[in-house]
Amino acid sequence: MKTLHVELGDRSYPIYIGAGLLPRADLFTRHLASAEVLVVTNETVAPLYLETVLGALPADGCRSVILLDGEQFKTLDTVNSIFDALLSHHFSRDCTLVALGGGVVGDITGFAAACYQRGVAFLQVPTTLLAQVDSSIGGKTGVNHPLGKNMIGAFHQPQCVIADTETLNTLDDRQLRAGIAEIIKYGLIRDPRFFEWLEVNVEALLARDPQALAYAIERSCQNKAEVVAADERESGQRALLNLGHTFGHAIETGVGYGQWLHGEAIATGMYLAGDLSRAMGWLSGEALKRIASLLRRAGLPVLPPAELSSSAFLDIMAVDKKVKDRRLRLVLLRDIGNAVITGDFETARLAETLDQNQREAQKALNA
Amino acid sequence: MKTLHVELGDRSYPIYIGAGLLPRADLFTRHLASAEVLVVTNETVAPLYLETVLGALPADGCRSVILLDGEQFKTLDTVNSIFDALLSHHFSRDCTLVALGGGVVGDITGFAAACYQRGVAFLQVPTTLLAQVDSSIGGKTGVNHPLGKNMIGAFHQPQCVIADTETLNTLDDRQLRAGIAEIIKYGLIRDPRFFEWLEVNVEALLARDPQALAYAIERSCQNKAEVVAADERESGQRALLNLGHTFGHAIETGVGYGQWLHGEAIATGMYLAGDLSRAMGWLSGEALKRIASLLRRAGLPVLPPAELSSSAFLDIMAVDKKVKDRRLRLVLLRDIGNAVITGDFETARLAETLDQNQREAQKALNA
Repeated sequence: MKTLHVELGDRSYPIYIGAGLLPRADLFTRHLASAEVLVVTNETVAPLYLETVLGALPADGCRSVILLDGEQFKTLDTVNSIFDALLSHHFSRDCTLVALGGGVVGDITGFAAACYQRGVAFLQVPTTLLAQVDSSIGGKTGVNHPLGKNMIGAFHQPQCVIADTETLNTLDDRQLRAGIAEIIKYGLIRDPRFFEWLEVNVEALLARDPQALAYAIERSCQNKAEVVAADERESGQRALLNLGHTFGHAIETGVGYGQWLHGEAIATGMYLAGDLSRAMGWLSGEALKRIASLLRRAGLPVLPPAELSSSAFLDIMAVDKKVKDRRLRLVLLRDIGNAVITGDFETARLAETLDQNQREAQKALNA
Repeated sequence: MKTLHVELGDRSYPIYIGAGLLPRADLFTRHLASAEVLVVTNETVAPLYLETVLGALPADGCRSVILLDGEQFKTLDTVNSIFDALLSHHFSRDCTLVALGGGVVGDITGFAAACYQRGVAFLQVPTTLLAQVDSSIGGKTGVNHPLGKNMIGAFHQPQCVIADTETLNTLDDRQLRAGIAEIIKYGLIRDPRFFEWLEVNVEALLARDPQALAYAIERSCQNKAEVVAADERESGQRALLNLGHTFGHAIETGVGYGQWLHGEAIATGMYLAGDLSRAMGWLSGEALKRIASLLRRAGLPVLPPAELSSSAFLDIMAVDKKVKDRRLRLVLLRDIGNAVITGDFETARLAETLDQNQREAQKALNA
């Protein structure tokens, strides 16, 4: 087992990474405030891992809630169903929530923990690659609104992250690829050597080579932990982690939550951010080709949904958490490994980039 | 105008108290992050003060939402209707919410601000006595759940509190009395001189004597600001502000939100806490008589609702934010001006106190 740390003063916490961590009661119990524990998971993960996790938790006082699976259930109503469970069990302010699942379960559970009795403890137990390398770390929690993704939420750090890499054995291929998108992101925004490593090893990741996966997870978590420690509330460089996310969130909102996986939308979003950067003369055509090629080899999409018009796309992008003084800001690329957040782009050029890629998507559909 | 301060480091903020503050654009604009402003108020307050407040805010970009009036609408659904408004206006993370109304409007609006895009700014503009002396200060925000009052929420401090004492001229008598309950609370928990002042001046408050009201509001705000500054997240002495609240919340939940005003439930709750303290030999019968007498002179109830059985009462009390290690803790009185938080009471004696007072209430009902 490897232990990394997110350094946030009195809110610091460990990330445990390794094979076979789910049954380890010692990892769980050291982070519980009392015997009152609610495990929140979903219908896909529950049959696989719920029993194991319950076995690692105090027998008396431990309860569970099983949610429906999918981004379309990341809503206030689902959060409310967790409050129902907490209150019907008379759980107090020293209870602990355990998020067992992917990014959706983690975001919902963390937000419920942030709001129950104005804040209780929670543990992240990510079971997808995307959640292990990204969403379980850093304290961003929340739910979607029909008009915008992740628009309702809170910063609320977990007590720890327990990433059992054996859970990836049951992950389907599409979910595995979606996780690789966020791994590639770290290479693109700040770690060019890691990008090069991925260019060599992406097939090993797809083949679930344990050593390659362990290395990619650790290096991703290290990148994430460093960024979060430097800028917990996203007043500066943390925004770079959103490379591709303004585009990606617009895709997820535009086609309906749950149609595209988050990682798939982010892959396309990163390519679009790269293409706009290239059109502005910031990024070489050569670098853009390397990005497109790596994403394609990972089995990820680079073209936007053919059915989403570029005007609708722009309209959804206008509601984004990075808007400042009514000006949309985007994370763009100067080079592989060098990202900047900027409002300094021509809207016409953004529209052109979306238009062109939407036409490409139409063409691909008709081909 | 008098200005007090809540000292909380980089979250410090002023409380402006005075007559005729609502039209003062200078007070509002210095606390706005951008021209995007959403005023949240209710159907009772809107016809009285909304136009005045909108006149003090930037003309472009300012919008409003009018909620239904009453504790029964302090729900997640109402908060969601505020998110709908914010998103349909494309409001960004640098928008500001303005809570114009009583405690319910302030709690709901503050919680919406805490969660919108993971936290935006908000201003408290309390128009009831209770909100001016208590709920608008200190950053407790949230909504009710059918199984427990204020069970869903966040700590989120406002940018400022603007308490225009002229708004009390339109407050109905029942609401005025409810506010006096929280004023009496400060005397009981930490300010015995103020309690004595209230014993002399309670009729002047009921007659809305401007000087008496101004003094009571300032002294209450000063007490609240000191307690919050010393213990923002209620890890210690801030819990003393909850004198009467475990009993009071159980009344509000038990008879249905909106039946008893919060201040009325707190008045009865403080009396019950006093009666239990007396039964335990902590408080003299003499002191309890003075408490009951002051509450009665203020037109406030001291007996619990006749229809709420003491067993149902106890059951609701079991879900309380002060529960620790499965043990209910209560704020009890050692003397007028001296409160303590304690789990050190016999449950049988608590049940007896509830029983006895419930019988008194039945008797009063049948008399």
